[in-house]
Amino acid sequence: MDRMPHVEFRTSPPNYKHWRLETDGPVATLTMDVDEQGGLVPGYELKLNSYDLGVDIELYDAVQRLRFSHPEVKAVIITSGKEKIFCAGANIRMLAGASHPWKVNFCKFTNETRNGIEDATANSGQFYLAALNGTASGGGYELALACDQILLVDDRSSVVSLPELPLLGVLPGTGGLTRVVDKRHVRRDLADYFSTKSEGIGGKKAVQWKLVDEIVPRVRWNEVISERSRDFASSATRLPGGPGIDLTELTKTRSADSIAYEHVTAVLDRDRAVAEITVRGPEPTVLPTTGPASMDDVYAQGAAFWPLAVARELDDLILDLRTNETEIGTWTFETQGSADRVLSYDKLLLANYDSDWLAREIVLYTKRTLKRLDVTSRSLIALIKPGSCFAGSLLELALAADRSYMLLGVLEEEDREVGPANTGPAAITVGAMNLGPLPMGNGRTRLATRFLGDSEALAAVEKAAGERLEATDAEQLGLVTFAPDDIDWDEEVRIAVEERASFSPDALTGLEANYRFAGPETIETKIFGRLTAWQNWIFYRPNASGPDGALRAYGTGKRADFDRKRV
Amino acid sequence: MDRMPHVEFRTSPPNYKHWRLETDGPVATLTMDVDEQGGLVPGYELKLNSYDLGVDIELYDAVQRLRFSHPEVKAVIITSGKEKIFCAGANIRMLAGASHPWKVNFCKFTNETRNGIEDATANSGQFYLAALNGTASGGGYELALACDQILLVDDRSSVVSLPELPLLGVLPGTGGLTRVVDKRHVRRDLADYFSTKSEGIGGKKAVQWKLVDEIVPRVRWNEVISERSRDFASSATRLPGGPGIDLTELTKTRSADSIAYEHVTAVLDRDRAVAEITVRGPEPTVLPTTGPASMDDVYAQGAAFWPLAVARELDDLILDLRTNETEIGTWTFETQGSADRVLSYDKLLLANYDSDWLAREIVLYTKRTLKRLDVTSRSLIALIKPGSCFAGSLLELALAADRSYMLLGVLEEEDREVGPANTGPAAITVGAMNLGPLPMGNGRTRLATRFLGDSEALAAVEKAAGERLEATDAEQLGLVTFAPDDIDWDEEVRIAVEERASFSPDALTGLEANYRFAGPETIETKIFGRLTAWQNWIFYRPNASGPDGALRAYGTGKRADFDRKRV
Repeated sequence: MDRMPHVEFRTSPPNYKHWRLETDGPVATLTMDVDEQGGLVPGYELKLNSYDLGVDIELYDAVQRLRFSHPEVKAVIITSGKEKIFCAGANIRMLAGASHPWKVNFCKFTNETRNGIEDATANSGQFYLAALNGTASGGGYELALACDQILLVDDRSSVVSLPELPLLGVLPGTGGLTRVVDKRHVRRDLADYFSTKSEGIGGKKAVQWKLVDEIVPRVRWNEVISERSRDFASSATRLPGGPGIDLTELTKTRSADSIAYEHVTAVLDRDRAVAEITVRGPEPTVLPTTGPASMDDVYAQGAAFWPLAVARELDDLILDLRTNETEIGTWTFETQGSADRVLSYDKLLLANYDSDWLAREIVLYTKRTLKRLDVTSRSLIALIKPGSCFAGSLLELALAADRSYMLLGVLEEEDREVGPANTGPAAITVGAMNLGPLPMGNGRTRLATRFLGDSEALAAVEKAAGERLEATDAEQLGLVTFAPDDIDWDEEVRIAVEERASFSPDALTGLEANYRFAGPETIETKIFGRLTAWQNWIFYRPNASGPDGALRAYGTGKRADFDRKRV
Repeated sequence: MDRMPHVEFRTSPPNYKHWRLETDGPVATLTMDVDEQGGLVPGYELKLNSYDLGVDIELYDAVQRLRFSHPEVKAVIITSGKEKIFCAGANIRMLAGASHPWKVNFCKFTNETRNGIEDATANSGQFYLAALNGTASGGGYELALACDQILLVDDRSSVVSLPELPLLGVLPGTGGLTRVVDKRHVRRDLADYFSTKSEGIGGKKAVQWKLVDEIVPRVRWNEVISERSRDFASSATRLPGGPGIDLTELTKTRSADSIAYEHVTAVLDRDRAVAEITVRGPEPTVLPTTGPASMDDVYAQGAAFWPLAVARELDDLILDLRTNETEIGTWTFETQGSADRVLSYDKLLLANYDSDWLAREIVLYTKRTLKRLDVTSRSLIALIKPGSCFAGSLLELALAADRSYMLLGVLEEEDREVGPANTGPAAITVGAMNLGPLPMGNGRTRLATRFLGDSEALAAVEKAAGERLEATDAEQLGLVTFAPDDIDWDEEVRIAVEERASFSPDALTGLEANYRFAGPETIETKIFGRLTAWQNWIFYRPNASGPDGALRAYGTGKRADFDRKRV
């Protein structure tokens, strides 16, 4: 698997091979029943509900659909369709055969899905209940850790475990270590013991150590799960609003050198190792530029509603490029369209954020998509030109970027003919979306992170909210990195992109991962920073991935041969 | 350098090869003037004030002596004895030739010294002023970043820079990325640009971007540095007290299988890959067990005063074992002596913490030594047996451990003969030292970190402060991990140690680094967690360290050959 397969993230319930999604009023049940022969690539069998990326793509789709298509659902039971096993975690033969980038990407995506589950509990009133009807080991237990409550069947054989360290010589890769101590508050010495004990812990001790919330005898299992899920459903408060939205299949055209959706296009320049991404703002026909518009229009448009459509397209594009185009190291972002219209869409959503489930879901999805960008190991450069609409939610793309270039004035006539004519100088606008609703993983807005420790600068930017800021003002306020005029523009942008392609890709990944998350840390940033970084290191070392490493030795009967030096 | 040289960390100013330490009343000057031929191992020349571990060992020693031997010093100028260059950072040929464990260990130690500089500013009233009389690049600029203020000469050629990424394909390894955004609040996009620009930034832009605090023309250099250092000295408040203490040379006996100091002994069992460390409590002759004792006794005893001597011995032992014994993966900790006497020493120090500089320094040094333990990549196991004195400051050793075993009851007669006779069952005591003065790098006490999210458990422990807690109570309160009786003791401890030696050393390092730091994050924990973990990964990848990697290609005229996949 050194050559990675092309992966497509779009799916829908009728196409699921590994999960069943059923709803019964306010309670949904997500049943994991992995097809052993249904691996994404050949070479391994997905035994014991072990998973690969394909299994997790379906889980992600199900979680998304629960939020958008099932507003009535307030409790989600995650359980297993197999006897005696909940989930054995990521498939080990798959991991042993996978390339380093594949392993890292796989862990990142699975982490994002689990964070999304926690986001549903925290912000959407959809509680997740892990119903462990059998042993949950490794990634299986980590999936449970992402749920709000964990119930384990008490049958003298079912346990929870994190056997990665003793069996495989790696760490639990989807947030397990962080969630055990930081979320569930398992005492660190008990956590240490637990994570070295491959046979796991069940029964009363699992409750005493806070590894699970409750153990239930098998005879009472169905009754208790049903009771708890109804309790959750009645205590959860999902906002009212219209009926669920069908997440229709995204229209996507992919050629060797481009990926095109309705509102988003990426041109892949392999020579320069850059993806030039353009996001188009809403068309005037979809929603009036100004003035009131109601949520009724939004429900009527469903998945075609511009902010939702853009979030879905960007989400798919990020996942596609991350997985399938690993040598394209830089992504540039441009926008085209009317800033006023972007802001009016933002306004409609925020006006209904506290009263309408769909308005909130769209904002939350935008937030998650931007967070996906923050943890993407690609250099991000925003190019702000005349005719662009970096305002409100779309300005976040520029704030998420590692750098931004904003054209001062307009381009000379000969350059301008390719862009929209006569739009005047580029401008950006800070909107309400930039001031709270779209926090990063560290819990702060991108603006607050940008101006960490400089409350004056932040206040000045907040004061300028709503104003069209041309390049001089934007640079002065610290909202863009550089503001070259048309004489310097091409050269400066060219150098920035070419230079990026000349640097060590590994060092860029590390640099960006450190600079993007100034300020406080959360469980999320710890997972993507501390834990992931250690895991990447461990994954790469011969003690795990070498010919005699633990990952390769597992299941062969051979013992791993370790370099015993502690580093 | 795949076989690492034996390193000794003990030194003193007369033996310095690379630094000069001068004091003039309240102002000290630390002048870096690296001996090009004075490298710790052959194979590289320390040109342009570049450094290796040997240079940094002297810096650490100087910083320690400023705290203990120079209570009159309130401002420390760090500057260079070379023309036009402050410091070129870690020596690149040294890094290129070093083994992975060596690089990681080197970065860890240099990080600890820089954190110690910040600790002096924050807690001892010793301000550090980086007087960059020439270019400070890479680790040179990172040393400046650890100072409270950075002054740069304004001569059209002197700059600050972090050229690691563009020139070497690695990250700045001593906290640079974290301090740039989290301490100095350089805007992240400017920081990104700065860290890709190998030629650095000087002059007004360096001030505007907050990279330095002030630029000073060469003609006014001496005058301004002198002025600023006197200003710092007059604004700093060092506590009063007696005269400085001479940090006399530590008595240390090192054989192939043991390291022995006056109060601390380590027996190295290479077969079991364990260092058995014993700390002996204070003898009754040194300070009365109970009743008042004055700081006069402490000044009279100087470096022989038990808490200071133990901190120095542990400090040296940790550094020695970390650097010279990388295959000894587990350290066990035992103590022997009177808990009451330990607590009375703690009491004396804390009673004078706010009024006497030396009392405070000893507590701060104990804190730093324990922090060194927290970031040590070895499994730490505390063994609490009859005759031990895990109380107050020494209890922190057990709280810093990944696990602790406490004997329930006493050992059978045949086992007991080797230990102190008739001491009764083991007990531990929580003291004032455990409740605040010795925080971890995350800013919380080890107890608060241990009981994260469980304020009831923490309150119960605080309530039990001062009580002798035998095994059942200690286990009940969550202060020890396991409390086996004499029938199980040997077997449980043996299995714990042997099992640890059978696991992947890399995975253990990652596991422990994640579990030890639950809760909030600080600049310090970000440096040792996020930044270090990424750096270790990058260091290990072929893009840096392979035959065609950037570290090896540097200076050869060849371009590094990168695997361009972004991970």
